[in-house]
Amino acid sequence: MPATPHDLALTTEAPLHAVDAWWRAANYLTVGQIYLRGNALLREPLAPSDIKPRLLGHWGTSPALNLIYAHLNRLVVQRSLNVLYIAGPGHGGPAMVANTWLDHTYSELFPHVTQDGAGMLELFRQFSAPGGIPSHASPGTPGSINEGGELGYSLVHAFGAALDNPDLIVACVVGDGEAETGTLAASWHLNKFLNPDTDGAVLPIINLNGYKIANPSVLARIPESELFELFRGYGYEPILVSGGVNGEDPMLVHSAMADALEYAADRIAEIRRAARSPQPAPRPNWPMIILRTPKGWTGPKEVDGLPVEGTWRAHQVPLANVAENAEHLAMLEEWMRSYRPEELFAADGSPVPMLSSIQPRGDRRMSALPASNGGLLLTDLVLPPLEKQAVDVSVGRGVTAEATRALGSWLADVTRLNPHTFRVFGPDETASNRLDAVYDVTDKQWMGSTEPTDEHLARQGRVIEILSENLIEGLLEGYLLTGRHGLMNSYEAFIHVVDSMFNQHAKWLESAREIPWRRPVASLTYLLSSHVWRQDHNGFSHQDPGFLNHVVNKSPDIVRVYLPPDANTLLVTAEHCFTTRDHINVIVAGKQPAPTFLSLTEARTHGARGISIWDWAGTEQPGAAPDAVIASAGDVPTLEAMAAVTLLRDAIPGISLRFVNVIDLMRLQTSAQHPHGMSSGDFDSIFTTSKPVIFAFHGYPTLIHQLAYKHTNHVNFHVLGFREKGTTTTPFDMLMMNDLDRYRIAIDVVRRVPGLQDRYSSLIEFFEDERSRLRAYAYENGEDSPDVTGWEWMATREGH
Amino acid sequence: MPATPHDLALTTEAPLHAVDAWWRAANYLTVGQIYLRGNALLREPLAPSDIKPRLLGHWGTSPALNLIYAHLNRLVVQRSLNVLYIAGPGHGGPAMVANTWLDHTYSELFPHVTQDGAGMLELFRQFSAPGGIPSHASPGTPGSINEGGELGYSLVHAFGAALDNPDLIVACVVGDGEAETGTLAASWHLNKFLNPDTDGAVLPIINLNGYKIANPSVLARIPESELFELFRGYGYEPILVSGGVNGEDPMLVHSAMADALEYAADRIAEIRRAARSPQPAPRPNWPMIILRTPKGWTGPKEVDGLPVEGTWRAHQVPLANVAENAEHLAMLEEWMRSYRPEELFAADGSPVPMLSSIQPRGDRRMSALPASNGGLLLTDLVLPPLEKQAVDVSVGRGVTAEATRALGSWLADVTRLNPHTFRVFGPDETASNRLDAVYDVTDKQWMGSTEPTDEHLARQGRVIEILSENLIEGLLEGYLLTGRHGLMNSYEAFIHVVDSMFNQHAKWLESAREIPWRRPVASLTYLLSSHVWRQDHNGFSHQDPGFLNHVVNKSPDIVRVYLPPDANTLLVTAEHCFTTRDHINVIVAGKQPAPTFLSLTEARTHGARGISIWDWAGTEQPGAAPDAVIASAGDVPTLEAMAAVTLLRDAIPGISLRFVNVIDLMRLQTSAQHPHGMSSGDFDSIFTTSKPVIFAFHGYPTLIHQLAYKHTNHVNFHVLGFREKGTTTTPFDMLMMNDLDRYRIAIDVVRRVPGLQDRYSSLIEFFEDERSRLRAYAYENGEDSPDVTGWEWMATREGH
Repeated sequence: MPATPHDLALTTEAPLHAVDAWWRAANYLTVGQIYLRGNALLREPLAPSDIKPRLLGHWGTSPALNLIYAHLNRLVVQRSLNVLYIAGPGHGGPAMVANTWLDHTYSELFPHVTQDGAGMLELFRQFSAPGGIPSHASPGTPGSINEGGELGYSLVHAFGAALDNPDLIVACVVGDGEAETGTLAASWHLNKFLNPDTDGAVLPIINLNGYKIANPSVLARIPESELFELFRGYGYEPILVSGGVNGEDPMLVHSAMADALEYAADRIAEIRRAARSPQPAPRPNWPMIILRTPKGWTGPKEVDGLPVEGTWRAHQVPLANVAENAEHLAMLEEWMRSYRPEELFAADGSPVPMLSSIQPRGDRRMSALPASNGGLLLTDLVLPPLEKQAVDVSVGRGVTAEATRALGSWLADVTRLNPHTFRVFGPDETASNRLDAVYDVTDKQWMGSTEPTDEHLARQGRVIEILSENLIEGLLEGYLLTGRHGLMNSYEAFIHVVDSMFNQHAKWLESAREIPWRRPVASLTYLLSSHVWRQDHNGFSHQDPGFLNHVVNKSPDIVRVYLPPDANTLLVTAEHCFTTRDHINVIVAGKQPAPTFLSLTEARTHGARGISIWDWAGTEQPGAAPDAVIASAGDVPTLEAMAAVTLLRDAIPGISLRFVNVIDLMRLQTSAQHPHGMSSGDFDSIFTTSKPVIFAFHGYPTLIHQLAYKHTNHVNFHVLGFREKGTTTTPFDMLMMNDLDRYRIAIDVVRRVPGLQDRYSSLIEFFEDERSRLRAYAYENGEDSPDVTGWEWMATREGH
Repeated sequence: MPATPHDLALTTEAPLHAVDAWWRAANYLTVGQIYLRGNALLREPLAPSDIKPRLLGHWGTSPALNLIYAHLNRLVVQRSLNVLYIAGPGHGGPAMVANTWLDHTYSELFPHVTQDGAGMLELFRQFSAPGGIPSHASPGTPGSINEGGELGYSLVHAFGAALDNPDLIVACVVGDGEAETGTLAASWHLNKFLNPDTDGAVLPIINLNGYKIANPSVLARIPESELFELFRGYGYEPILVSGGVNGEDPMLVHSAMADALEYAADRIAEIRRAARSPQPAPRPNWPMIILRTPKGWTGPKEVDGLPVEGTWRAHQVPLANVAENAEHLAMLEEWMRSYRPEELFAADGSPVPMLSSIQPRGDRRMSALPASNGGLLLTDLVLPPLEKQAVDVSVGRGVTAEATRALGSWLADVTRLNPHTFRVFGPDETASNRLDAVYDVTDKQWMGSTEPTDEHLARQGRVIEILSENLIEGLLEGYLLTGRHGLMNSYEAFIHVVDSMFNQHAKWLESAREIPWRRPVASLTYLLSSHVWRQDHNGFSHQDPGFLNHVVNKSPDIVRVYLPPDANTLLVTAEHCFTTRDHINVIVAGKQPAPTFLSLTEARTHGARGISIWDWAGTEQPGAAPDAVIASAGDVPTLEAMAAVTLLRDAIPGISLRFVNVIDLMRLQTSAQHPHGMSSGDFDSIFTTSKPVIFAFHGYPTLIHQLAYKHTNHVNFHVLGFREKGTTTTPFDMLMMNDLDRYRIAIDVVRRVPGLQDRYSSLIEFFEDERSRLRAYAYENGEDSPDVTGWEWMATREGH
């Protein structure tokens, strides 16, 4: 963007009075949101009836958020910068909203909140009110990509947003409370991954206001020497701005803060120049700002004889019972009038012109930055054809392939075709999950030092690996919310590390759907591999399929779960997920050599249906009801279920078994529960209304019951799956430990089809003997018997 | 413990040859576990038949773990120390087991693994084999309290173990991979909470071997100046030991490592002296060691033309296909013989006497330290009576109380009576969750600087608060696993942050049950408050009851979930939880003023049953089957369900409603599924076999279906609960948004009791109108109507 005349109007020498006025105005609007339902402009003395009946909100963090906003505005105007403002501290909602109203953005996006006295009152009344807006930065806050609810994700979101945005500066305000969280503590090291040439800059501003809800913060109570060493050790150049204590003149702080920001902007410009020169410099020490101000600065100093400003008591509502307590009411009025609203708002309540002198225009406003509403910038991915990677099963079903390896090859093509808008993130598991074909076309981005033995490390690359699921998740969230695409991969068990981040992202997407001006963003897609059934060598700690249970609790508008049974269905599933918007897709797929069941064409049909009867895999006779339905979801259970059919077909002449495979788990719900759910007619036509259904499932059996319980034949569902039995053993022994092996499936069919159990009791005994034999073999030999490791028997299924 | 003559045999001048021999022996035993199934002592040339069919395990991290173990042994002997060894790096299992075998502990605890050649072979064969032992430190590893499966929890476990163990040194080896995780990155700051007077010391030893699975580690690739600044900034005194590169003589590293450990031990002794003097010193800068050694040190330098030692290729099994590849076989033999096993093991295969010269004896062995098998040290908590805190309902049911406030008062008594063995942990929410009565008897432990305005901060205190659920959880785990008791409290929504840590602790407990020498430890008890139904002011991000769904997936031997409906039942529940062992108890309870339903005596009975019919709350007529069952679990749903009964009783003369309350959620399963489950007879006697059951549940409705689906009348269960609808609104509006309010419950009863719907269609309309009126009131006034905020109607229930 070229600089406009307006942008050039301010210089570094411009007075800071406008900044101070903006700050006072934002503070005034923040306090008003917490307290007032009338008399917004204080044109009358404050009366009890002006006070909200229920005082909610958080004052403590707000003055610093407002201070930073005001100063960043000045910097943006002065230097024609594109700055994304991320507010990390919890419950900074009223502050952020106040600034966006001053920006005029709020009135543009929510026209009923006009930029005048009536709109100001509406702004106040809606805050933390039923039908109104929440108390922290949320999807409804213009300019925000980070919810201030669950703490700790601001800085990782900032780095995700900065990737591939070379002209962007992400100013990330970190609270000293959230700085104690694990994710935030680890996020500082992300400067080892940010390339100043091709990525934007992240400017962390940690606000040491000293207190959390009820305790001092750790970083505010260590010697300044340690504080500097810490941030230097993290690889930054820290700049300290400190003040506001004991009534110190805010203008002194303004001056220091302006200098700090200008220095930081200079350093960022220098770093960019150095990185974008023909001889790129080594990893820079990016600037960061330590802003030490009193909690609740400019609020009441003392209330009821106890100190408030500068203590934890300023965290929420410093003055309670204002409507009932005349002294508190007077203190509130004095507090609000201390901002001199008559200087800040014109007769009609609109901000005075002095404020707009430091207000950026149009898209440069931090509250209107297109990157903060990423869907505005989103373009479709260019998706390559799947044919190159598809496994050819024309020679017969069962061709061996490693599903994730096929996917990796396709992801390489995706990466090549979308060189600036697609990234893969992994916690040091991208190669282990067999996606390493991507390294044929790209590298792992890495700004740390390098050694001659390193492979695939480069300053610019489309893969980022760091051993923290939290950081991987947060980077991808930040990348998606600013309008790009990506995939994260993880071992299945350890994805639980981000359960809570998943929750918050799902809630963000669900809330964003209701904000009319938020544009859809690319879905967050997880590839979970190294899954529960093939962690036999790593043992119990690595065996956990519970993320699926966690995911399905979230809104059906948002969550999708896919269990492609083979390589071709995985390809089709991934292709689909990359075209979706505002969803969270969870794909579970194996990395081990496994049979390919479907051709690419069949896989497309199956993927589109989400659930199908596989005629070729069952023994059903046309025209007659089957004796039982054998269903499967997941690659390993599908193989076992098919093997069970073979065992039964060979042992029980004429047995009629229907084979059903589920790829889209949400299909099992009703259409009233989930957009992918089935009507009862469709469900009944697949699962019958009365026949036994033996369901071999990848995860915990209860999940299938939970999803399917509203359907008629659910009473006849018998689900086999992970029963929380795990250890270091062989793959087949893992199945036997959890009663998910082919013999157990076959036994359960015999037991549940009426009339079979008595006639085939010796068959059950034989199957049980086989299990004992196979377990003994494994324990004796340390590996599985060839009887269960091959799948030659698949050749006896219908040819293709 | 007094020093024994043996302890005094070594001095600081003792030669390091014994240390080197121990290291070589442990390395030999590590390699043997990964590769050999025969020829353990290499008394013959290595043959393909000596090689395991499936090569599993992780070599890369092992040599450093062994080096540290050997040196710590020497230090323990030399100074008569009590050292707990925590191995953080992933997959260090074979190394830790090797050392415990050399210690003779392994043979004492697993007598079939003798300390001779036959036992050595057994040691090798069992590793990563079916029926054997896993590849990382696990409950079966003597001396371990930390599983090396999911990474990042070593250092927080170390701090938890050190609390209240003033004579202990916890030597915590941190991997440079796990150092990238959030929890580990935040854990360094726990030195701001450790009191050198009353707590033990934590000696972190970060091993920079440079690589993760497939990538360099961040901390190994920053300048040494930054590394030092980082750890100084974290508040430590870092000591660098570096060596072993390019074939450097290990004796040089031994010398540096011995010096470093002696210096660290000196510093710890000085810090203790200073802290235990009459004028305690300020927070010390504890020593920590940075140990930089090549990954897979002493292993193959190069394999198939590619560098291995000192690269990520040394992570797992450096030599593959050894049985089939003669060159690899020869390299393995050369590698193993490089340790000179003939010097290390006597003719019978037992360790030579030189090794035992640095071997501590008895309980001083790190593998036999009682704190590492905490149940050995565990004593019962002294539990005060509940009568003092019990809410008196003799004036009538419905007396208002804040449940967690009553609990807090009782916890104060528990704290007072157990001054060294009980702690409360919270993420800055202990006061917010209204447990602040504990501050009447204790303080928050805090070693940071203090200000005059601080309250309840002290160098020693029984409450620890830091804004990280991960750290809180890890501290409590470490505290419990070393034989003490505790409680952690959290907002309900954000407990998902520790989902994965919960998983791993549950798996640890489940596995530990099968290790005969592991003694039961105190259960981990969560108090979840500020729950989903009273986060109306904080909004959607704070509204999530899904932890219960997550918990119930884990072993029924381990997990327990309690939803006490009022203050008295909360007291009874907490008392029970503190007497249990090896469980994970989840208690969800409210902090807001709410009615007390049961007397303490009734609460005891109800708590013991876990589920009861509340005759006084229903309208059931003796001798006749009820028209419907109204059931509830959770405080807010119970209030709504009771209000629904009142509405229906007043509107439908003679309606017969049974009221059931569930406090112990696992009672809803069958007795085959969970030890607390009910027989079908018991279940049917409570829920009938055919009547509609309208179940008002605290969490996601699907959870009740998941738990109860095996019972006969489950088909008639209609569950109301959280439907993932949330925002900032009033408490009653939250209930209406999710269809869990009293009117909705009453409507659903009318709809489901045969014959009522037609006769009472106008009642349904009336109830719907009431809902509309109440919502309009809330939106107009910003608070709930008095119609639903009082519970005067409770007085019309049966008197008490």
